[in-house]
Amino acid sequence: MNGRVPFGVADYFWDEASKRQNLLDLLMETFRGWGYGDVIPPMFEFDSTLSAQYDDRLRSGMYRFLDRDGSTLSLRPEFTTPVARLVGARLHDWPMPQRFCYGGSVFRYLEPQAGRQREFWQVGGELIGAPNPAADAEILALTATALKVAGLTEFRQIVGHIRYYRSLLQALDLNPQQTQQLQWALERKSEPLLDDFLRETPLRTGQRQAVETLPQLVGENVDGILSLAERHIQNRGMHEALQNLRGIVDALLGYDILDSFVIDLTEIRNLGYYTGVSFEAVTPGLGTAVASGGRYDDLVGRFGPPQPAVGVALGVDRLLVAQQRQDETDSAADPRRPQAALALPQGSQEALAQVQSLRQAGLHIQVDVNGWPIDSAFAYAVETGVCDVLLWEDGFQHHQRDDQGDFVLLGQLEESRLPGWTANCREGLSK
Amino acid sequence: MNGRVPFGVADYFWDEASKRQNLLDLLMETFRGWGYGDVIPPMFEFDSTLSAQYDDRLRSGMYRFLDRDGSTLSLRPEFTTPVARLVGARLHDWPMPQRFCYGGSVFRYLEPQAGRQREFWQVGGELIGAPNPAADAEILALTATALKVAGLTEFRQIVGHIRYYRSLLQALDLNPQQTQQLQWALERKSEPLLDDFLRETPLRTGQRQAVETLPQLVGENVDGILSLAERHIQNRGMHEALQNLRGIVDALLGYDILDSFVIDLTEIRNLGYYTGVSFEAVTPGLGTAVASGGRYDDLVGRFGPPQPAVGVALGVDRLLVAQQRQDETDSAADPRRPQAALALPQGSQEALAQVQSLRQAGLHIQVDVNGWPIDSAFAYAVETGVCDVLLWEDGFQHHQRDDQGDFVLLGQLEESRLPGWTANCREGLSK
Repeated sequence: MNGRVPFGVADYFWDEASKRQNLLDLLMETFRGWGYGDVIPPMFEFDSTLSAQYDDRLRSGMYRFLDRDGSTLSLRPEFTTPVARLVGARLHDWPMPQRFCYGGSVFRYLEPQAGRQREFWQVGGELIGAPNPAADAEILALTATALKVAGLTEFRQIVGHIRYYRSLLQALDLNPQQTQQLQWALERKSEPLLDDFLRETPLRTGQRQAVETLPQLVGENVDGILSLAERHIQNRGMHEALQNLRGIVDALLGYDILDSFVIDLTEIRNLGYYTGVSFEAVTPGLGTAVASGGRYDDLVGRFGPPQPAVGVALGVDRLLVAQQRQDETDSAADPRRPQAALALPQGSQEALAQVQSLRQAGLHIQVDVNGWPIDSAFAYAVETGVCDVLLWEDGFQHHQRDDQGDFVLLGQLEESRLPGWTANCREGLSK
Repeated sequence: MNGRVPFGVADYFWDEASKRQNLLDLLMETFRGWGYGDVIPPMFEFDSTLSAQYDDRLRSGMYRFLDRDGSTLSLRPEFTTPVARLVGARLHDWPMPQRFCYGGSVFRYLEPQAGRQREFWQVGGELIGAPNPAADAEILALTATALKVAGLTEFRQIVGHIRYYRSLLQALDLNPQQTQQLQWALERKSEPLLDDFLRETPLRTGQRQAVETLPQLVGENVDGILSLAERHIQNRGMHEALQNLRGIVDALLGYDILDSFVIDLTEIRNLGYYTGVSFEAVTPGLGTAVASGGRYDDLVGRFGPPQPAVGVALGVDRLLVAQQRQDETDSAADPRRPQAALALPQGSQEALAQVQSLRQAGLHIQVDVNGWPIDSAFAYAVETGVCDVLLWEDGFQHHQRDDQGDFVLLGQLEESRLPGWTANCREGLSK
């Protein structure tokens, strides 16, 4: 048996596992603080359900397998569709809005970049049943708050509005080849390609100016960009998109997060999925987004009565990498064992009873199950990073590791004095 | 789109999800208190790895699918094998013993009983690299502690020792048909079938007495049963099994949990897997075990150098059912939304800023994103179980629901007085 794991998945253990779990808990607790309620969808469901959002990239990357009744199942590639299914099919006549948050593994086969995992963790939230800009603003503000909670000090939220581009396309009335050409230019953010399009495509002056202006509709000057875009409105849809974006920006003023905003009205990567605002959060030195989200008013309606909806998902794995780069910690270091004192009960029942009571007081204590002499216990403690060794002699004698790595007898461990030990080895007697 | 989920999986949301998550956290924290370190293995891995323990029942119930390179993958049906793989393949030369704990979804297709899920949650721990009875005792004591932490007041741990039966089989020197007949009788706990076996099988007197005594080797009188079994020892293996069991019982004296013990030396259900002590924890009114575990000294060696090991896994779903039966709560009730105060910022930026600061103080607050008038907010609050409505008027006016369900103005919410609100609607302003 070779003991390998499949490409794209990994074991996490000890402090690697704790950091991951703690970050997930912290993010979930942030969502809960905003009134979002936990939801735990299945790890797999019908492929037809999870494919409902018609995103080819996501569909081609799903892990599929057959249930024994012949139906096709897929591991969930994200949480938004399961939550939309739950609300559409079961909770559609419960009071709106509904707020849901979730966290856990998602699975995608196609992750071309090196180092990307095929099983990774997402935390996110969905605000369903609220059409107003205040709802979009809440998701944007919540995202910024969650990124700060995760310890990121530098990040940008790149905010687009898919309806602006969709409506511009309507106004231009292009044939499919022309549409494709414009889309390529925008997806590649290439001005030469855009110039080609403009040269080859017959357009009226107003239309032409609206397209020429597109590269200028990207940047930090939110108000300036919106004003510029407003001067090139071709139809009602473009007007409404900009009005909606202004409403969202206004609703964000109370949240003090606009500093991190970049408006990008040429952002069309999630063309098939979102119906309004869409955004990604990025951080320096990391090529991929740490969070992405937007408004998807068409998804819940695939499973029941239509409901407006907006949400975000944060990538826990990417946030951990971003934290690591920011803190310049060594990512290649071996995982460290959790801190737990080592108790040697020396065969005494009283010792075990006291260990139990120390654990109930919140201390983390491992018991020697080898019957080690004290020197073996000290050696194991040094090897595994244990700072406190408790040796039973009519009560626990508390030995603690000093800066030189030698164990020093501090005296008898008195339960009444817990917690109150001074720490000199990492954190001392661990809780 | 029909919005159903596949048979055997389910959505959990709001308080259903929180209870589930909280129980998992509580159990994990119990393991950590005993010095167990978190491990997060992949959700799926090579089928050949997960099949390494050669348990036919488990193997036939695994969800299998093909990776795109043609290798067969399986969703994990339990955690013990992945942990054994990790230690055997990667951590074999790190200091022993190693203690690992884990929690999360496992997947089994074959669960014939009604109401059983095909995706369910396990929490468990593995103590690897320790051969002594003190290690088995730790796992048994930890299991009892975890069950108490989970709130179970009545449970039994049924403790067997597979080596006793294996050694008896050696001593009897049966042919395959005779072995099968004895095994059937024991698996069905059927004395008539055992009588058939004894009538049809030629045995020496000592052998015959050892088999005749088997039905008496089940019960709460631990010491009496061990003494009785010792009088019918046929070979060294039976002797060592009983000596090992005595050692475990002795090591348990400090833990005050022997009251919940039932010894069952005829327990052979996990014949292929365990190599020493094996046990199940059961609770009244629940047909299936809430925890099971034992010693498996042969598994780690399939992936690297052999290591003695003992562990336990608890079933979170079954524990929740056991809690529910014990508390006689209504399992059919709709999930309740999480408690979060409802704030109406009335378009004020200052209001949103104060909401943020209340959230940072730990309060759970949802913000109205509909621009509701106060009456709509009160109606939504009543429908969704919200107790506190904060209406901005140069500061938040705090309205709280009284016993009649009407909202009463308590006055201006002063941040300096938080936390200190008296609760009269479930728990009042929720944190």
